[in-house]
Amino acid sequence: MLIALDWGLTRFRAYLMDGAGAIVERREAEAGVLALAGGDFAAALDDTLDGWPAAPVVAAGMITSRQGWVETPYLECPAGAGELARALTRHEAGGRTIHFVPGLTVRAAGGVPDVMRGEEVQIVGALPAGEGDDTEALFLLPGTHSKWARAEAGRVRGFASFMTGEIFAVLRDHSILGRMMTEGATDGDAFARGLDDAWREDRAGGLLHRVFGTRSLALFDELTEAQTADYLSGLLIGTEVADGLAMAATRTVTIVGTPALAARYETALRRRGAAVRLAADDIAATGLFAIARAGGLSAAAS
Amino acid sequence: MLIALDWGLTRFRAYLMDGAGAIVERREAEAGVLALAGGDFAAALDDTLDGWPAAPVVAAGMITSRQGWVETPYLECPAGAGELARALTRHEAGGRTIHFVPGLTVRAAGGVPDVMRGEEVQIVGALPAGEGDDTEALFLLPGTHSKWARAEAGRVRGFASFMTGEIFAVLRDHSILGRMMTEGATDGDAFARGLDDAWREDRAGGLLHRVFGTRSLALFDELTEAQTADYLSGLLIGTEVADGLAMAATRTVTIVGTPALAARYETALRRRGAAVRLAADDIAATGLFAIARAGGLSAAAS
Repeated sequence: MLIALDWGLTRFRAYLMDGAGAIVERREAEAGVLALAGGDFAAALDDTLDGWPAAPVVAAGMITSRQGWVETPYLECPAGAGELARALTRHEAGGRTIHFVPGLTVRAAGGVPDVMRGEEVQIVGALPAGEGDDTEALFLLPGTHSKWARAEAGRVRGFASFMTGEIFAVLRDHSILGRMMTEGATDGDAFARGLDDAWREDRAGGLLHRVFGTRSLALFDELTEAQTADYLSGLLIGTEVADGLAMAATRTVTIVGTPALAARYETALRRRGAAVRLAADDIAATGLFAIARAGGLSAAAS
Repeated sequence: MLIALDWGLTRFRAYLMDGAGAIVERREAEAGVLALAGGDFAAALDDTLDGWPAAPVVAAGMITSRQGWVETPYLECPAGAGELARALTRHEAGGRTIHFVPGLTVRAAGGVPDVMRGEEVQIVGALPAGEGDDTEALFLLPGTHSKWARAEAGRVRGFASFMTGEIFAVLRDHSILGRMMTEGATDGDAFARGLDDAWREDRAGGLLHRVFGTRSLALFDELTEAQTADYLSGLLIGTEVADGLAMAATRTVTIVGTPALAARYETALRRRGAAVRLAADDIAATGLFAIARAGGLSAAAS
């Protein structure tokens, strides 16, 4: 048996898994890292796992960050299940042995680092085949800070974070663009127009310019106020998708995300001519199992 | 004599000019459009012009917007002093005749409109020579919503707005990037690094990605917290400058702006290999005078 923990800032999911990697039981708690705020992580774990058998525990997510429980280093790419397993940080608490997974880091050609923490187990879980597979795979994990990752031969070779979700939120909530936005049902036409305008070639291109178009289109009544949020979403997601696809040669993207957000990105990717696969639910558990197996963890070895 | 008004959202400047366009007296009032908020614009004008002779008044800026005093339409590019003069909106108030200047609009190749209101008189004032000059000129008016404009033969041929200043402000004040920013003196090295990173060629480019580097550089102690604001400023201004320069063939840019902000853009432009000219102070008055002259305005004709 194995206990896998996907323990993020706002969500905490625990999985009891059998020796073949099948999920026997799934529990979810409110005890995210932010809610606990440096409090009693061990007690939160005890509560959540109450009644589950003794088994090795493997954990990933922001629980391994500085504001979490046990900080793990960032491991450099390329890295797959094997490298992550060799870099586990072991911690004893409440009679259980917990193996914390490191985050990943990579440096772009220009020397600026990038980081992820938690997403690496989802990517490992979504890898198409065994470590011998040398087909290039491209993963997209949309969110506040979207991650795009390129994998080959079972290892993450490189990745990039995009602040798309957060920039959308601050523009909606705090900029002149948000002042005209009204609540409403999603407007697929406005979203698609935003995508197309993100991809249009012209001399005065660039996102800093294009977002201003949200305002001038509304000023000329070419967008209704109810459409402006979806138009801006299309501009930002379209820009991210074009930049993300440029990271790899493949035109097939595996999306790991919540249904509503994944649907927006799927629309954008298909409109851009890419093929889309959706990762299975609970893909983090699959990745944590693969890392535990690569590390030879078992109940006896815990 | 001519009275020229540069009447914006927060500032109201009035100029008494002689028949040759020299400024005889200059007054500044707190009565910006926002402060008056739809209130008594005529009284604010009377107060500000108290004691000045009867003379035609020409006015530009957000005072001509929907939330201003007399709304003027947007005139389509190409437009110079002559076209603006022919599109003046005449208004009588307090015994004076006021001629309100229209804003400008242009459509990018893709059909998205752009607008300016007030900047057009600064550009007209900064035009290098008479309307017969067919040399291309490129103007930059940095700010919350920077404007880049390309002129030829005395006319604005095209322009683009960039939300650089506002996006910097919302990221600093409301995003995860701002949470680590501390106040401090301007750090020229961090700003220059931001510029260079904005211009670096790599596969995972794009601004949505690059802004995240502000966070990861700080995480790895490769930027101090005090440097993060200037690094982000460099990333954003560098991106704007690269996109703005792409609008024209010329590599000489005339900056119209306040000294502190103009200095940042001048640093960026020179580092990018462009030549910089700084527009004279009170360039709006110069532009308003040129429009008034093109419109044949005089005290007798007011």
